[in-house]
Amino acid sequence: MLDGQWTTDWKSMRATRTQRMTRSVIRELLKFSQMPGIISFAGGLPAPEVFPVREFRESSSFVLEECPERALQYGRSEGFTPLRQFLAEKVGKYGVPAVPENILLTNGSQQALDLLGKVFISPGDTVLTEAPTYLGALQAWNAYEPRYVAVPLDDDGMRVDKLEEVLEREPVKFIYVLPNFHNPAGTTLPLERRRKLVEIAARHKVFIIEDDPYGELRYEGENIAPIISLHKENTIYLGTFSKTLAPGIRLGWAIAPEVVMEWLVQAKQGADLHTSTFVQMLAYDIASRGILKRHVEVIRGVYRERRDVMLESVEKHFPEGVSWTRPQGGLFLWVRCPESVDTEVLLKKALEEEVAFVPGFAFFTDGRGRNAMRLNFSRPSPDKIRDGIERLGRVLRAEIEGG
Amino acid sequence: MLDGQWTTDWKSMRATRTQRMTRSVIRELLKFSQMPGIISFAGGLPAPEVFPVREFRESSSFVLEECPERALQYGRSEGFTPLRQFLAEKVGKYGVPAVPENILLTNGSQQALDLLGKVFISPGDTVLTEAPTYLGALQAWNAYEPRYVAVPLDDDGMRVDKLEEVLEREPVKFIYVLPNFHNPAGTTLPLERRRKLVEIAARHKVFIIEDDPYGELRYEGENIAPIISLHKENTIYLGTFSKTLAPGIRLGWAIAPEVVMEWLVQAKQGADLHTSTFVQMLAYDIASRGILKRHVEVIRGVYRERRDVMLESVEKHFPEGVSWTRPQGGLFLWVRCPESVDTEVLLKKALEEEVAFVPGFAFFTDGRGRNAMRLNFSRPSPDKIRDGIERLGRVLRAEIEGG
Repeated sequence: MLDGQWTTDWKSMRATRTQRMTRSVIRELLKFSQMPGIISFAGGLPAPEVFPVREFRESSSFVLEECPERALQYGRSEGFTPLRQFLAEKVGKYGVPAVPENILLTNGSQQALDLLGKVFISPGDTVLTEAPTYLGALQAWNAYEPRYVAVPLDDDGMRVDKLEEVLEREPVKFIYVLPNFHNPAGTTLPLERRRKLVEIAARHKVFIIEDDPYGELRYEGENIAPIISLHKENTIYLGTFSKTLAPGIRLGWAIAPEVVMEWLVQAKQGADLHTSTFVQMLAYDIASRGILKRHVEVIRGVYRERRDVMLESVEKHFPEGVSWTRPQGGLFLWVRCPESVDTEVLLKKALEEEVAFVPGFAFFTDGRGRNAMRLNFSRPSPDKIRDGIERLGRVLRAEIEGG
Repeated sequence: MLDGQWTTDWKSMRATRTQRMTRSVIRELLKFSQMPGIISFAGGLPAPEVFPVREFRESSSFVLEECPERALQYGRSEGFTPLRQFLAEKVGKYGVPAVPENILLTNGSQQALDLLGKVFISPGDTVLTEAPTYLGALQAWNAYEPRYVAVPLDDDGMRVDKLEEVLEREPVKFIYVLPNFHNPAGTTLPLERRRKLVEIAARHKVFIIEDDPYGELRYEGENIAPIISLHKENTIYLGTFSKTLAPGIRLGWAIAPEVVMEWLVQAKQGADLHTSTFVQMLAYDIASRGILKRHVEVIRGVYRERRDVMLESVEKHFPEGVSWTRPQGGLFLWVRCPESVDTEVLLKKALEEEVAFVPGFAFFTDGRGRNAMRLNFSRPSPDKIRDGIERLGRVLRAEIEGG
């Protein structure tokens, strides 16, 4: 035993890239929000009461009865072939042109973001995001040491009219965009802006990563053509089962041109060989029997009600000077407070009232968003939403009127 | 639709690191070896007929009856707490000192290798491996752009007596070692060499990654103290359920000092948030009910017989001038042919006789091993082993005596 005789200086062993890596602020915040009694609008969690539990039970039995040796054995890095076929057909119906060869199964969209960072980001490359944007993408990419530039959002998503001036300022490798029911902003990019985005990106020889975790969760209005359908040769599209089936199975997919697929598959092999065969076969069984489609309708009904309750409640309880987005789908409302409010400070007071949210700064790369917050409406029940928004309204009022 | 008007020059978009990334030679070879009629000694696959299918069925039902909302929801990046506790206790019995806080659940050991590369390898850092070594480790690490130096093996694993001279030649960040039933070599590092390795590593301030996927599959002799038990402060240990439960669930673990865990958890969050909660709960249920332990005994019996059949068969059918290792456990035999034999060429001839293996060069970083091959004995049945080795013996004899 050499322990104690010589202690490794682990800090000196770290790779330079780890200086950019951090724990997710949100995941750390979630620890507070899981304390008993807290009404949490902080997470991005689906409502567990709508998980298709019976369907998972039936499919587990079926898969382990009918093809256990396949389900439990190593599989292809690209993913389970019938599931790739199913997804190609499914996205085809939404106007996304794809064949199975364009589809890679991943451990949720998060892994697709990581693999894309590995394949495309050289240290110092510039990535263009929206501001605010999905924090997990930055967390995945920071390890590959990019620079970030950002284009602001308004209530219709990315300010595409500001895009060109940013692209002219410095060379950008790709544009990362969440066009449907944005996380955290809840906004949706109209077709006209999508067309403009695609046209500007092509002109500047910049490709697009379209992240669409919530696209199927639309509660009003018509579906809008995905960006990939407007320029499939220049777009990589990310989808997931996390919000329609369940996040705990960790299953998502990327749609990419075949040449990109080759590199993504290499990255996937190095990262973890392949995604769980058993999990892929479960998802395939549930999806291919038509259950997924019916289930998504159930979820839409449940979440639509919760969104409506949250919108009514903030209307009723939030003070003058506070504004918010009206999402057509997804999981989140984005709330802007007067400049005098610091939502990180506000969160401490909110936790005393046993209500939680995510402060806005967590979604910016440059410390902005200090007067904003993200509210999740998918997880808490309608009653909890009413109660929690009332509490949060009190905290906000005290802060604004008393401060 | 802009398609056709402007085609993205994807190649120019790739990150510099992708120049080092390749598809796994082995996974590509496996495609050939899966052709019908082929007797394959090429893969590293467990025998599917010993998968604990009934146990997976029972545990799936149990988990989805008793705690579906937990199994299907997002979980902690570190892993499912009861499974971390179980693993800490389990490895404690083997002399590996660990508490749950030292344990990270990963998607197989492969992901642990990737996360370790991300956390520790700066471009240009030197990694010391055995020669030959596990190809998947190199595939994971190439994306982080290390240099490699290697220490050769003999029938007792790493030539630790050669280690010091390599470490003196250039600064090395860590030593990667497979001490038990080495992949591909089938060798086991004796206790004396483990002690010496630990002592030399500490003297040179180099840490150790101990990769132990096969440790529980010992068919003869006594367990040898794991390297981590000799110097836990300077060692990171990797284990997996792939060879004891099933590889298709993609579940492994890393044991690391707490300060390293912090960085691994950050890397894990960025990579895919966490490993499937459902899969972790299945493994926990099977393992904690004592089934895993009984099941490992079954596997040992089956694989011991196959190893014995393979050893008898090569003794009987392989020509003069060919030698092989006698593994005490694991999945592989390593065969050395006369220098005149090129096993990549030999493989083509073997495939004509409908038998497959992995040529040795695949396990070296410098093109050596061209006269070696790896034979897997866990997957084919004893009859197939007899038949396949007889065929391979014919091919070898023709090559050596006729060539």
